[in-house]
Amino acid sequence: MNLLLLETHEVSADGLVRLSGRRQEHAREVLRVQAGETLRVGVRGGRCGLATVLARDDQALELRVELNAAPPPRPGIDLILAIPRPKALKRIIPALASLGVDRVVLVNAARVEKSYFDSKVLERTFLDGLIDLGLEQARDTVPPTIELRERFKPFIEDELSAFGPAARLVPHPTASAALAPVPKNQRVLLAIGPDGGWVPFEIELLAKHGFVPVSLGERVLRVEVAVPTVIGAERAGP
Amino acid sequence: MNLLLLETHEVSADGLVRLSGRRQEHAREVLRVQAGETLRVGVRGGRCGLATVLARDDQALELRVELNAAPPPRPGIDLILAIPRPKALKRIIPALASLGVDRVVLVNAARVEKSYFDSKVLERTFLDGLIDLGLEQARDTVPPTIELRERFKPFIEDELSAFGPAARLVPHPTASAALAPVPKNQRVLLAIGPDGGWVPFEIELLAKHGFVPVSLGERVLRVEVAVPTVIGAERAGP
Repeated sequence: MNLLLLETHEVSADGLVRLSGRRQEHAREVLRVQAGETLRVGVRGGRCGLATVLARDDQALELRVELNAAPPPRPGIDLILAIPRPKALKRIIPALASLGVDRVVLVNAARVEKSYFDSKVLERTFLDGLIDLGLEQARDTVPPTIELRERFKPFIEDELSAFGPAARLVPHPTASAALAPVPKNQRVLLAIGPDGGWVPFEIELLAKHGFVPVSLGERVLRVEVAVPTVIGAERAGP
Repeated sequence: MNLLLLETHEVSADGLVRLSGRRQEHAREVLRVQAGETLRVGVRGGRCGLATVLARDDQALELRVELNAAPPPRPGIDLILAIPRPKALKRIIPALASLGVDRVVLVNAARVEKSYFDSKVLERTFLDGLIDLGLEQARDTVPPTIELRERFKPFIEDELSAFGPAARLVPHPTASAALAPVPKNQRVLLAIGPDGGWVPFEIELLAKHGFVPVSLGERVLRVEVAVPTVIGAERAGP
């Protein structure tokens, strides 16, 4: 935990916070904070800063916060992600939150197993917990939105305009273009397929809607390795 | 498993292979191969190709292999990695094998916990199993070499020449240069710090030996997210 994430309503008008539960226990047992020390804090969806520990006992942690910094800049990335197996989903959600992805749409695809929809990882409270882990890791306060779409075709046909202008890219093994940086003033919308890849119908539908196939080379990467690799490549450069 | 990894001695002069154990069980229970079907195979350190299933029963799988392809091209990357916590190490080793990193040196650092050295993940057979998972995922046959150095300073002072010419880069939060692609005809040698980062002494020693600090931005990423992000950025472009 590199940042203690607070909710707006937890901070009083004069900057005082009293915490109990998971965050208090983490501050006490892992960070071992003492009265007088400072901690990095941030308010969900808002500003970051430092908190001074006023008092600490087994039940609660009292802080005075000063929120004088903006959260980190965002890389301008949205993601359409074929629902990965639950174990991979559990790893990729904190990673996406830490990388500062803005919007994640988890979509069905021909090679997505039906059972994945019943995974507890897709429950709202579980997802929110995973997002918080990623924000706390990256010292960010702004969570990605995460949505689920059970039908791929109507989503691609009817909802893409909501993303606004962006370089639309779909990693695909047989693509002739290599991954290359996109200028940073341009947003990127990525469509990442399931294990085994998008089927031809899905690739054609994506291509029809402006997604350019790009190749990561011959190596088949796990989704939790492929996504940071692609994001790193697209946002490389000064 | 996207490739069945064979040992040289398992392939007879006329291309016949008889497998039992983990790979036979995986082929039977997960891939559900039947006689007459083909599988992607590769020989450790050598060539790739296809195998035709000649016979299959509960005890063994009989294959005829044709090794007519080279393993995938390698990105030209070596890594000096401060030993991460065992859980992260368990995830990063298959990722590094799948990304085609050539040489990984796990080094001690000021912020590496001493207990990490006793982790069973560092045992040779455990590491080899993790490497195989990554190779099977990426359809590669060439394992990275993985070495351990318990003393950081003599390793940096005495052993760097073994890596040969390369762009030497050290991701560091306060660096003024951003991540940018390195021309693909040039190798890359990365020094990735522990949770909490390199300490000033380590950064200075690395800088003295030609490592250029580069920034990933304000976000603090977990090692298993940071490494693919950096590799993606360094190897982006045509």
